[in-house]
Amino acid sequence: LEENGKMIRDHEGVEIEVKKILVRDTSRKRNVEVDRSLLTDNPEDVFKNDEIDIIAEFMGGEMPAFDYIRTALEQGKSVVTANKEVIAKHLDELELEAQKSGAGLYFEASVAGGIPIIKTLRRSLQANHVLEIMGIINGTTNYILTRMSEQGRSFDDVLAEAQRLGYAEPDPAADVEGYDARYKLSILSSICFRNRVTVDNIYCEGITKIFPADIQYAGELGFGIKLLAIAKKQDGKIEARVHPTFIPLSHPLSAVRDSYNAIYIKGDMVGNLMFYGRGAGDLPTASAVVSDIITASQNEGAHQAR
Amino acid sequence: LEENGKMIRDHEGVEIEVKKILVRDTSRKRNVEVDRSLLTDNPEDVFKNDEIDIIAEFMGGEMPAFDYIRTALEQGKSVVTANKEVIAKHLDELELEAQKSGAGLYFEASVAGGIPIIKTLRRSLQANHVLEIMGIINGTTNYILTRMSEQGRSFDDVLAEAQRLGYAEPDPAADVEGYDARYKLSILSSICFRNRVTVDNIYCEGITKIFPADIQYAGELGFGIKLLAIAKKQDGKIEARVHPTFIPLSHPLSAVRDSYNAIYIKGDMVGNLMFYGRGAGDLPTASAVVSDIITASQNEGAHQAR
Repeated sequence: LEENGKMIRDHEGVEIEVKKILVRDTSRKRNVEVDRSLLTDNPEDVFKNDEIDIIAEFMGGEMPAFDYIRTALEQGKSVVTANKEVIAKHLDELELEAQKSGAGLYFEASVAGGIPIIKTLRRSLQANHVLEIMGIINGTTNYILTRMSEQGRSFDDVLAEAQRLGYAEPDPAADVEGYDARYKLSILSSICFRNRVTVDNIYCEGITKIFPADIQYAGELGFGIKLLAIAKKQDGKIEARVHPTFIPLSHPLSAVRDSYNAIYIKGDMVGNLMFYGRGAGDLPTASAVVSDIITASQNEGAHQAR
Repeated sequence: LEENGKMIRDHEGVEIEVKKILVRDTSRKRNVEVDRSLLTDNPEDVFKNDEIDIIAEFMGGEMPAFDYIRTALEQGKSVVTANKEVIAKHLDELELEAQKSGAGLYFEASVAGGIPIIKTLRRSLQANHVLEIMGIINGTTNYILTRMSEQGRSFDDVLAEAQRLGYAEPDPAADVEGYDARYKLSILSSICFRNRVTVDNIYCEGITKIFPADIQYAGELGFGIKLLAIAKKQDGKIEARVHPTFIPLSHPLSAVRDSYNAIYIKGDMVGNLMFYGRGAGDLPTASAVVSDIITASQNEGAHQAR
């Protein structure tokens, strides 16, 4: 908003102003410079403020984020969120709340960071039945598998390096056990198939048991190993799973290296599509979040005009 | 519309009915079965019909398509088109006409067939300055280069085969000389940079002078050869060109084989993105066209409700 705010105003006709920033600790040192008078640790300063139309949530974790999002929607404030856990677990309830109050709920950044996959599924592929979706939607595990494949190193060795470089968390379970990808697949498949696919219904296996020998054998057969999130609809049934998968080296998903994400979709009309980009990081996430804020503002404008 | 019309009605809340089909010759045999009473060779049956809100144009070529599109817009009918030549040459004038009458102008299918690139640029990347765009946006030439690369064959040999199989036109100039890609790059870069990039301002070189030896030398250096459509903005200046290009074999565009298309974009916030899919073919084109028709109907509905 700071760097491209003027362009957004000129091109999109919306002026976005940050009114309040709710934080746990107002005295903590931040990586970005912000006007300290905007900071507050009191949720009421946000929820009870009539000048605020849109709330963007980036706390992460289920609680209290879920409560805050629900409260905002109840009060008719639109919500933009990057929170995959809350959306994966509570999408139905939140969408109902949004419908009741007329507020908007936007969560492009919750899956695959900067890749605009949610809006594309909803606004560009409406003429298709989605038959299948296959995604590399966790950057950390793709980084680890890329290094293991290209350098012949072990999982533990590459993970330790990734942790040193800040690419992997000190507790890496959410990534390497596949839980992060499972939340995202729950969101993606719920939207693709217009049917609730809960986390409990997704089989999940991480990459901790992949050895260099597995990758070597795969390569000899013309395959690579990727942690894929897969969902298919066949005969009215949806199958969804996250696990390490052999894919042919000639498949476009094989060329997705390092921490990049990609989502491969098969539609009954459009055939095969793939969307590739940065699945995480401050600025790619900002690209998705700010796009949602712009859309929310424009819909808000339409709402007020009525 | 025939296969997925019910789904579109249920999910999107719009019922799309084909009222008239304007053709050059009503007696000609068609590949698809249509109710013959819908066929007409009289443009007035379409333009003077108040029951028609949206006109979809697939004639191709500049004339009379341009005249028809302009007439439709003047009369307040929204237009959905796959016509890259008309859009590349007349986008400004047609958008002005649409603005005057309040009609919509949609042309997702004019670039890269089923890949939803136009809407993505306009509705999902609004928070970005696009810095660079690199596209494989002509399927015929990518098919020829793929065969030449993988089978070591000559341009003439593969072209003749592609013509036999119907992948290349009897007069292949529009594809192999790069003119088709140039129209599409004109449209893409005009939208990316919000600045008219005319066909005359795009350098254009085809693939007719690529020899197997070129591809072999490129490979020895770790590169492949692709016909790329490239546009960059630097220091306020836009540079746009279509020509055969060396790209590293590790680049995601290198993995785009056969007649597939892909568009690689660098945004100042989102970083690198790539969109991959079918650039041509009846059903992928239908996916884009019908998506535009749905959007037009929904906007039309909003218009009427006001």
